[in-house]
Amino acid sequence: MPLDVALRRVTAGPVTAPHPLPGFARSTVDGYAVRAADTYGVSEGLPGYLTVTGAVRMGAAPDITVSAGTAVSMPTGGAIPPGADAVVMIEYTAEALPATTGPGTIEVVRPVAPGEGIVRADEDAAEGQEIIGGGRRLRPQDLGMLAAAGVTSIRVHARPVVTIFSTGDEVVPPATASALAALIADAGGEPVLGGIVGDDPGALEQVLRAALPASDVIVISAGSSVGTRDETANAVARLGTPGIWCHGLAIKPGKPTLLAECSGVPVIGLPGNPRSALVVFRLIGMPLVGLVGGAATVPPEPSTQARLSRDLASATGRLDVVQVTVSGGVATPVFGVSALLSVLTTADGYIVIPEEATGLDGGSQVTVTLYR
Amino acid sequence: MPLDVALRRVTAGPVTAPHPLPGFARSTVDGYAVRAADTYGVSEGLPGYLTVTGAVRMGAAPDITVSAGTAVSMPTGGAIPPGADAVVMIEYTAEALPATTGPGTIEVVRPVAPGEGIVRADEDAAEGQEIIGGGRRLRPQDLGMLAAAGVTSIRVHARPVVTIFSTGDEVVPPATASALAALIADAGGEPVLGGIVGDDPGALEQVLRAALPASDVIVISAGSSVGTRDETANAVARLGTPGIWCHGLAIKPGKPTLLAECSGVPVIGLPGNPRSALVVFRLIGMPLVGLVGGAATVPPEPSTQARLSRDLASATGRLDVVQVTVSGGVATPVFGVSALLSVLTTADGYIVIPEEATGLDGGSQVTVTLYR
Repeated sequence: MPLDVALRRVTAGPVTAPHPLPGFARSTVDGYAVRAADTYGVSEGLPGYLTVTGAVRMGAAPDITVSAGTAVSMPTGGAIPPGADAVVMIEYTAEALPATTGPGTIEVVRPVAPGEGIVRADEDAAEGQEIIGGGRRLRPQDLGMLAAAGVTSIRVHARPVVTIFSTGDEVVPPATASALAALIADAGGEPVLGGIVGDDPGALEQVLRAALPASDVIVISAGSSVGTRDETANAVARLGTPGIWCHGLAIKPGKPTLLAECSGVPVIGLPGNPRSALVVFRLIGMPLVGLVGGAATVPPEPSTQARLSRDLASATGRLDVVQVTVSGGVATPVFGVSALLSVLTTADGYIVIPEEATGLDGGSQVTVTLYR
Repeated sequence: MPLDVALRRVTAGPVTAPHPLPGFARSTVDGYAVRAADTYGVSEGLPGYLTVTGAVRMGAAPDITVSAGTAVSMPTGGAIPPGADAVVMIEYTAEALPATTGPGTIEVVRPVAPGEGIVRADEDAAEGQEIIGGGRRLRPQDLGMLAAAGVTSIRVHARPVVTIFSTGDEVVPPATASALAALIADAGGEPVLGGIVGDDPGALEQVLRAALPASDVIVISAGSSVGTRDETANAVARLGTPGIWCHGLAIKPGKPTLLAECSGVPVIGLPGNPRSALVVFRLIGMPLVGLVGGAATVPPEPSTQARLSRDLASATGRLDVVQVTVSGGVATPVFGVSALLSVLTTADGYIVIPEEATGLDGGSQVTVTLYR
């Protein structure tokens, strides 16, 4: 794919430098390109004298050579002229008085070692060196590095196709499916709305089976809520091996979640309550979509530290996800039954109370994962 | 714009609920819809008896009414039938023995108050209530809430057009421009590559002037590096009022940054070194693009807490941005001269040493802003 549309796409393999980078030696300072040996032993009390034979312009190839006893004026970033092996910062030089040394002569008051003031031609990368790893979700600076290497197109993983079904018992089908599609796109997947499936378990199995070959992940919204819980599980169990991994998670909200693998395709059955479904999908579905999409690591979510405004109770043996607003360094829980979407739209993020905790004290420091 | 493509777009104004949400009263538990008054005074020792007259199915409108002395079986999420004002959890009921009370009778052993076990029809939002504020960058759950409200299209701000120019002295023009375009897209802007402008200051002024009417922000890459520093500033100064805000920032890397406003259009002149340019644009350019794009707040960047692997020196009066890798809770600085893009591609994120600090001690806790 062309590099300019590859942001956030996942590399299919490592990319190596086709030639040394940045490609030519350049100055890191404003000053004078010199032979380092010409500066050995100089000091404030005993300066060395060099004849300035010209200047290098930014972006232009040098048309001048540095020989013993000479110096060439350099801008930061300018290409090092042949013969020079170091750059003296302008601060450590002075124009010599013409009466002493003749015109075009500088004093150098501090010695430089070979390589000082210079970025080597292969300092960013040697020819053949890996510049971007495989399985990387491309970031802006990665595109910059690839462009610098002259790469104009790149092999990336296809976006995983994530098919979303809503079962007939979902109260407001478009709400959860709309939000799920957005979360899938955020995770690097391609959401496909599979539509609403009626209550008939045979019909559910049929549409799932039809979607299987073209899907990398299948999500069944409201597929595990009370009423259709067993029907969905039965349909999924018949779909392919190894089948159901688990039905029910020690998490609140989100307990009635179903996780399965059918003929190599991960299947997630989400709770019927929109809020529960979205909480679970953020925690489990988004990283899954990223990994199925070839990402070597799952990108981090934004987070911030805050003090908890009040005590929060929690049962041990269960992960609790609590929605919060954050203002002035204080995280305030937003309460409401799990059916309410307004809790999620009001929240700035959420905190997780770990399984082993019996709750969190008001005033304690918490990490809030922030919604973007 | 259609709702399904509005993720991350910024709302042009608040959106109110066209009708109550979720739209009908529903049960939050599995149990029985009742008249609360029928349960007053009941206890384990003195249960109340109610006749079960039917059941509500998920997703179906109730075809039954609850009258005094009766109850209707309810799934979680089911619509509350007329006449009922509370739902008793199934745990607080038992099927009464037929011998005592006749078939289809339940015992209720705990009283409920009116409204208990019920989400009101307008509990997510009353009709006319604001459900999504203006200037909000739409998140997945916001799309869900809007879909639940029946909203299918929404007024959003146009993406701000950000025109990028590279000046002739830039060593590897496509590298910085490619990365800048990606950062602008991330910030919600529409990057436009204005091309490379030669060294002639008159030519620079001419292309800037031509781009002004169609640009919401102008970025000049390498527009403030040594050599063209004054030429760029002169061209920008002649472009429009109020003109240059500042030329030079107390930040490393990124010192030779130029900030200006020309006839209402913000203009940023970035340093010539690719890495310096990208560091400055992340800190200043991205929030600016977001705000110009109508966002009420700038979305947070991902961050994590880590311990610093070693001492870091810093000059007071200057903000230092240090690139780091993060592994096992330890942040390790990545060093290299500011021209090197490989420092940015190697880094997982960066830490900021504030202006007032003289450095950071090894082992101290730092906040790492993570690259996504």
